[in-house]
Amino acid sequence: MFEITPSARLRQSPYFDATVAAGVAGFSAYNRMLLPTHYGNPEGEYRRLINGVCQWDVAAQRQVQVTGPDAGTLVQILCPRDMSKCREGRGRYVALCDHDGTILNDPVVQKVDENRYWFSIADSDMLFWCRAIAAERGLAVTIDEPDVSPMAVQGPRAEDVIASVFGDWVRDLKLFWSRETDVDGIPLILARSGWSKQGGYELYLMDGAKGTALWDIVREAGKPWDIGPGAPNHTERIESGLLSWGGDTDDRTNPFEVRMERYVDLDVSDDVVGIQALRRIHAEGPARHQLGVILEGYDPLPPATRWHDILVDGRNVGDMTNRTWSPQLERNVGFALVSRSCSTDDGVEVALEGAPVTATITELPFC
Amino acid sequence: MFEITPSARLRQSPYFDATVAAGVAGFSAYNRMLLPTHYGNPEGEYRRLINGVCQWDVAAQRQVQVTGPDAGTLVQILCPRDMSKCREGRGRYVALCDHDGTILNDPVVQKVDENRYWFSIADSDMLFWCRAIAAERGLAVTIDEPDVSPMAVQGPRAEDVIASVFGDWVRDLKLFWSRETDVDGIPLILARSGWSKQGGYELYLMDGAKGTALWDIVREAGKPWDIGPGAPNHTERIESGLLSWGGDTDDRTNPFEVRMERYVDLDVSDDVVGIQALRRIHAEGPARHQLGVILEGYDPLPPATRWHDILVDGRNVGDMTNRTWSPQLERNVGFALVSRSCSTDDGVEVALEGAPVTATITELPFC
Repeated sequence: MFEITPSARLRQSPYFDATVAAGVAGFSAYNRMLLPTHYGNPEGEYRRLINGVCQWDVAAQRQVQVTGPDAGTLVQILCPRDMSKCREGRGRYVALCDHDGTILNDPVVQKVDENRYWFSIADSDMLFWCRAIAAERGLAVTIDEPDVSPMAVQGPRAEDVIASVFGDWVRDLKLFWSRETDVDGIPLILARSGWSKQGGYELYLMDGAKGTALWDIVREAGKPWDIGPGAPNHTERIESGLLSWGGDTDDRTNPFEVRMERYVDLDVSDDVVGIQALRRIHAEGPARHQLGVILEGYDPLPPATRWHDILVDGRNVGDMTNRTWSPQLERNVGFALVSRSCSTDDGVEVALEGAPVTATITELPFC
Repeated sequence: MFEITPSARLRQSPYFDATVAAGVAGFSAYNRMLLPTHYGNPEGEYRRLINGVCQWDVAAQRQVQVTGPDAGTLVQILCPRDMSKCREGRGRYVALCDHDGTILNDPVVQKVDENRYWFSIADSDMLFWCRAIAAERGLAVTIDEPDVSPMAVQGPRAEDVIASVFGDWVRDLKLFWSRETDVDGIPLILARSGWSKQGGYELYLMDGAKGTALWDIVREAGKPWDIGPGAPNHTERIESGLLSWGGDTDDRTNPFEVRMERYVDLDVSDDVVGIQALRRIHAEGPARHQLGVILEGYDPLPPATRWHDILVDGRNVGDMTNRTWSPQLERNVGFALVSRSCSTDDGVEVALEGAPVTATITELPFC
């Protein structure tokens, strides 16, 4: 175990004090902000997410805001997905790609109002990317990082907790729908979203001075459902097949390799960044695809800190990009980013430290 | 003290195993890579840097490589500095700016050979930025992150150590000059550079499998000079006035605000990104400037985790962007990014947690 060294370069979230009060024990860095990773009880935090409800500081999921008369035009240029039917208060999961069709980030893009969009980003500098494209194309937009800090409330009891705070209308929100609202005068946008498959909401706090106040409102409201602190959960997201950009992708990954084909519209305008490359890759077929891999053996392994080679007859066919002990499968499982010559039910070996481990390729998600 | 949670998203350096063997105790994350911060003896590591020699894993200072027939053209477009006289084996410190003149990164840009440049970057995704500008301008270049991982050897005894490994020619290298060479068959580029003012070199290792081997060669060679492990040193860099992009800058900082005026050439071509904005800012005068601030009192404070307001008569005039106990000044000191109404010898207050602290504005560097 190593210390994370404090620094003004790694920004504190508006929820920082609240998470320290709640006993946060570990952090990662994400978009140059401290992202809580656990509160010292990984098994309990996993079970609470699967069975109950938890609240997460995900302020590090920064927003890139595009405003101005050309906002809609720029957003379509950046997104290889048809955004024309995206109405206010709705969002779309998008693979932002460079001109070669390589994924740069996988945000949910939310249309806040007619000329205002938020890209709720993974861990890469999309502010700079968006500004580069906008300025080079001469578009009339402003691109900035607003004072917006999401808190996630996740788990099967999340709907009850959020309804108890905001009212029963929240039960009718569909996935990636959102509404601007407030609680005790604290302004926020409430969306049905979050980086788990257990259901839940994200509260996009719009006043960084109110982090502790909002955290405490949710914590108090959640007591009847035994809410507790948590964080984006490594085990649940692997079991559920959720992608971690930068963790499961490398500098040549395209959307078709990582199960994002259904979020790509190849018939958008030729102006869209990367669309020609994506059409070509789609026509030729991607080099790799993403599947699951189940390791032999019943001894839980710790999470991996790097990718591991996947071998067939001693030949490298790709990489195992993550790893967790799955309480539901009672096996060590992870994602495989492998050659298309490799498919479900294939027997492989994973070159872990020390000896190779026998494994089987499967479909995703696991659960 | 909080744990940094292991993750494939935060990459390990080729020197990782060597730094663990050397007793690394803390990390930061930098360009999505683990960056060692200390080995458990901050005072000893500072003294060794000032008086002796130390070796640092700075592989997180990634290289953005630009190659191809238009490489020189793109590099000039990206750099608001005259690059036309930069010869092979030479480097330039550059403020990469966006179209509004805001600093995106402050790399040393090295001309490796006629059609190959490396941007040795601070902590932001310049790979994406460079690709965006290159593709939008239709330039024939390839932009990638090569297998290159710098190790720094810093301190007044660094020259003796490096000369003992590579020969006395290293003594004639000037600042930011470099030469391709090897040691025991390990390919690298040796440059006189590094993020301290104590003198030294960076070894740009060009084979990620050889991290431990190169680390050990330097460690063994350095024994007569009592070399030890270290890391970019918070205290020394503040005393020496070295900028930390992202730590001392915000989303509206331009080069003139942070003492980079002498690295900007306003007469470069109009094609250079941001040059019109920089000319305008220069003509109008920047809103802020960067000075030093010395706090009253003789009790060492811990490093700051965020910026703190600087006040004159209760009015906010800017921010204290970092803080250290200076062994040489025997005071708590830091950088001030303040209104130009604020100048050297001004008395101010810094709004630390709890009560404001009386302080004096000074020139930079401190030492």
